Amino acid sequence: DNPFVLFGGMNVLESRELAFEVAEKYVDVCGRLGIPYVFKASFDKANRSSINSFRGPGLEKGLQILADIKSKFGVPIISDVHEPEQAAPAAEVCDIIQLPAFLSRQTDLVVAMAKTGAVINIKKAQFLAPQEMKHIITKCEEAGNDKVILCERGSSFGYNNLVVDMLGFGIMKSMNVPVMFDVTHSLQMPGGRADSAGGRRAQVTDLALAGMSQGLAGLFLEAHPDPDHAKCDGPCALRLSQLEPFLQRVKAVDDLVKSFTPIDTA
Amino acid sequence: DNPFVLFGGMNVLESRELAFEVAEKYVDVCGRLGIPYVFKASFDKANRSSINSFRGPGLEKGLQILADIKSKFGVPIISDVHEPEQAAPAAEVCDIIQLPAFLSRQTDLVVAMAKTGAVINIKKAQFLAPQEMKHIITKCEEAGNDKVILCERGSSFGYNNLVVDMLGFGIMKSMNVPVMFDVTHSLQMPGGRADSAGGRRAQVTDLALAGMSQGLAGLFLEAHPDPDHAKCDGPCALRLSQLEPFLQRVKAVDDLVKSFTPIDTA
Amino acid sequence: DNPFVLFGGMNVLESRELAFEVAEKYVDVCGRLGIPYVFKASFDKANRSSINSFRGPGLEKGLQILADIKSKFGVPIISDVHEPEQAAPAAEVCDIIQLPAFLSRQTDLVVAMAKTGAVINIKKAQFLAPQEMKHIITKCEEAGNDKVILCERGSSFGYNNLVVDMLGFGIMKSMNVPVMFDVTHSLQMPGGRADSAGGRRAQVTDLALAGMSQGLAGLFLEAHPDPDHAKCDGPCALRLSQLEPFLQRVKAVDDLVKSFTPIDTA
Amino acid sequence: DNPFVLFGGMNVLESRELAFEVAEKYVDVCGRLGIPYVFKASFDKANRSSINSFRGPGLEKGLQILADIKSKFGVPIISDVHEPEQAAPAAEVCDIIQLPAFLSRQTDLVVAMAKTGAVINIKKAQFLAPQEMKHIITKCEEAGNDKVILCERGSSFGYNNLVVDMLGFGIMKSMNVPVMFDVTHSLQMPGGRADSAGGRRAQVTDLALAGMSQGLAGLFLEAHPDPDHAKCDGPCALRLSQLEPFLQRVKAVDDLVKSFTPIDTA
Repeated sequence: DNPFVLFGGMNVLESRELAFEVAEKYVDVCGRLGIPYVFKASFDKANRSSINSFRGPGLEKGLQILADIKSKFGVPIISDVHEPEQAAPAAEVCDIIQLPAFLSRQTDLVVAMAKTGAVINIKKAQFLAPQEMKHIITKCEEAGNDKVILCERGSSFGYNNLVVDMLGFGIMKSMNVPVMFDVTHSLQMPGGRADSAGGRRAQVTDLALAGMSQGLAGLFLEAHPDPDHAKCDGPCALRLSQLEPFLQRVKAVDDLVKSFTPIDTA
Repeated sequence: DNPFVLFGGMNVLESRELAFEVAEKYVDVCGRLGIPYVFKASFDKANRSSINSFRGPGLEKGLQILADIKSKFGVPIISDVHEPEQAAPAAEVCDIIQLPAFLSRQTDLVVAMAKTGAVINIKKAQFLAPQEMKHIITKCEEAGNDKVILCERGSSFGYNNLVVDMLGFGIMKSMNVPVMFDVTHSLQMPGGRADSAGGRRAQVTDLALAGMSQGLAGLFLEAHPDPDHAKCDGPCALRLSQLEPFLQRVKAVDDLVKSFTPIDTA
Repeated sequence: DNPFVLFGGMNVLESRELAFEVAEKYVDVCGRLGIPYVFKASFDKANRSSINSFRGPGLEKGLQILADIKSKFGVPIISDVHEPEQAAPAAEVCDIIQLPAFLSRQTDLVVAMAKTGAVINIKKAQFLAPQEMKHIITKCEEAGNDKVILCERGSSFGYNNLVVDMLGFGIMKSMNVPVMFDVTHSLQMPGGRADSAGGRRAQVTDLALAGMSQGLAGLFLEAHPDPDHAKCDGPCALRLSQLEPFLQRVKAVDDLVKSFTPIDTA
Repeated sequence: DNPFVLFGGMNVLESRELAFEVAEKYVDVCGRLGIPYVFKASFDKANRSSINSFRGPGLEKGLQILADIKSKFGVPIISDVHEPEQAAPAAEVCDIIQLPAFLSRQTDLVVAMAKTGAVINIKKAQFLAPQEMKHIITKCEEAGNDKVILCERGSSFGYNNLVVDMLGFGIMKSMNVPVMFDVTHSLQMPGGRADSAGGRRAQVTDLALAGMSQGLAGLFLEAHPDPDHAKCDGPCALRLSQLEPFLQRVKAVDDLVKSFTPIDTA
């Protein structure tokens, strides 16, 4: 019932300058709103639709940027890893390492991440039922790490569409781990553009409020100063300039629902 | 941006006494909370899974009970019709007549309902995309009635399951008609019991809050003093004794989100 | 393991002349190929997307055309009914009366149809699991009629799409009733055009062969001499001129799979 | 329009002895039936539901067993790789290397596989539309390899279920690459057992016939002498003793549909 944490940042580390600009904005707004904040950005986009898509600065340069942001702004860092050998170096800089949705069943990656001792943010795959997330939690625990977060990001709903099942949050919360909501990627329309995913940015506030009405541990959000020219997932990204009014609304809903005494309607 | 209206009541008119008990409770609670209230109950359940299931008192007796409730408590009435010839008599008693989800494409029924001049509550079929609701609104308008409400009640999601797509509310709201949320039937698990639908009553508050976070015109709810012995859809019904705390939470979320100035994130 | 029966014809009775032209072609081709044949056409399309769509000649005129076709060509007739009071008159002309998919849960209609004593073709609703069809069979039986056929026509798969689950045929066959495949309506893309359903005519042979590989009691098919100008579901209709090569392929697959001794792989 | 190829074998290399027993049976039956044959087995199961599940002999030992089978029986080999660094060693033994469904979007893996020059069998992910497979073909081509096969294995259909969309085969065939059907994994019920996937072995022949009615380049099949004690995906595996009658039926359908002159029904 603590206030929600924001895993907020940008999709991929397009440049050092942009990363600092984005981080500064988040730090500023979250500071003013009293929202615990973790900076998020990817050093590599390993699963783009096209081989020609921008992938990011890579592990070494990317972690250096993240380390510099951590140092300059004094914020914790989250980033995603895609290969078992990336887990340890990533965990040296990142406080939280993230298991990508498509890779959430890959045992070697899960085990390598678990062994770092870092907190692990598990993205729920589009092909998994909420109940099945229990298996991944157990995998982490058996590898010696119970600092696990589950993160919803939508389920396959026919072709080229995702739907967020609001009832899934409650099922995952019953597993006694923090449950978060990645509103940005839940807005994707897979295969919706010629060579990348489309998105539904216009509905980001609506979907975020719906998710945060569930009393969650946190929200995952990507923003960009110019989403139409973002190098990845721009159609889903919030305009950075709208961060403050967006988060005000999210925080108000979170504060409200966490003020409620639960009703056992079973 | 007005406060939400509650279409609340019970699934089927099990008896006059029970209907009065339920109506009294709703009237009392809604009065105290300042929620505009419409009494809902069905006089006939025309699509039960089994021929042996309880169907209700039928048109004539059912409308009499509804008329008596209207008269005693001074509340508007909503009930559902299943045949074109039921539309006119139902509209004599009911302020709002409801088009059932499975029947939402039946032109004769739509036209007969439209011609009554009553307000029409259109349940969105489990097999329709939100965009397709525009066709049904147009049907009503072409039959001379633009007093239409759209009501979400979940979409088919694989077999024996429904999911509520939160992004559908915004699409339907853009059609410039009031949009409501039937939380009760969205909790159904079709075919989930031997000869009737199962339900997820334990999650009724969660799902209601998610829906009402979308700034809706109203909520549709069924409650029962003893849901485990209700004659229809008991697994989805709220315990009548929990109506007040349930509605307090729903109202708080509705009030909050309607206090927000919208952000245009497109 | 008998050869499949063809329920073949046109979507809606556009005119007497066209109906006779279509029937003649089917009778001719089926005669040559040795396929037991039942003429299908609707006298009313009760669930069009638009109120302005063509609906057909109506019950009386429509049944007259069907009776004349039956008399002239000596073939059995199937047509669909949408209101309980249509069941008895329809059954006077039709050998088989059809329960539309959207209406397959409407108890009064099921009972009225059952009471005619005619064979009932139950279209499986897009929102029902194959296992749930058992309830509708039971409804018919309890109303005194066990001459029931189940007919697959696709399941809702996200928005605006249908998918045919090949594993559903086996589940329905285990209910010990004849199971058919409506390939035409399975090709629909609901809401795919501005004011009506789209279709995937180009794939009609592929989908028909897949269905008929399951050893079915029959195939349901709509054809039209000029599908691009058909008054309903043209995008799904086979060109009438291609009926013979189409049915040759379907029959060859049916004959082959029915020559197989079943293997119990459980 | 050539006869289909069988990628047949077992799920995971449980032991050298078992692998030889299985290979011998396939070689024998395929020889007798005139079916071009490729032996399939995994050296590692990298995405089991539980960390305690059997994973296989690993890369080195596994490839040795596969090399020995290739040498002894004179058959081509297919196996799946999960990390970029496995691609080159696997391609030294395997004629075809397989991209797992969950990993089908991982660019580094795709590129590493493409660079080996081996034929690549791309499993269609449960979360991808058939149209999206074009992107993965392009990725391979841009990495210098156009020897690509697409392999259907079912789409997410709600929770804990897969459906095979028969219309997807035609869409993928239009991409001018060989299209195959993995009937075994299409039978999975994800999350269907306490700690692993369930399956629908009883329906393996039905589903295989449906797929092969589409005129495919090949079939992917796993069999086991004792499926109830198989170490992975036993609920989906055909009994090895039923291989011959199963393949006879599949071959008869394949031969028949490939004898048809196509009809252009567009």
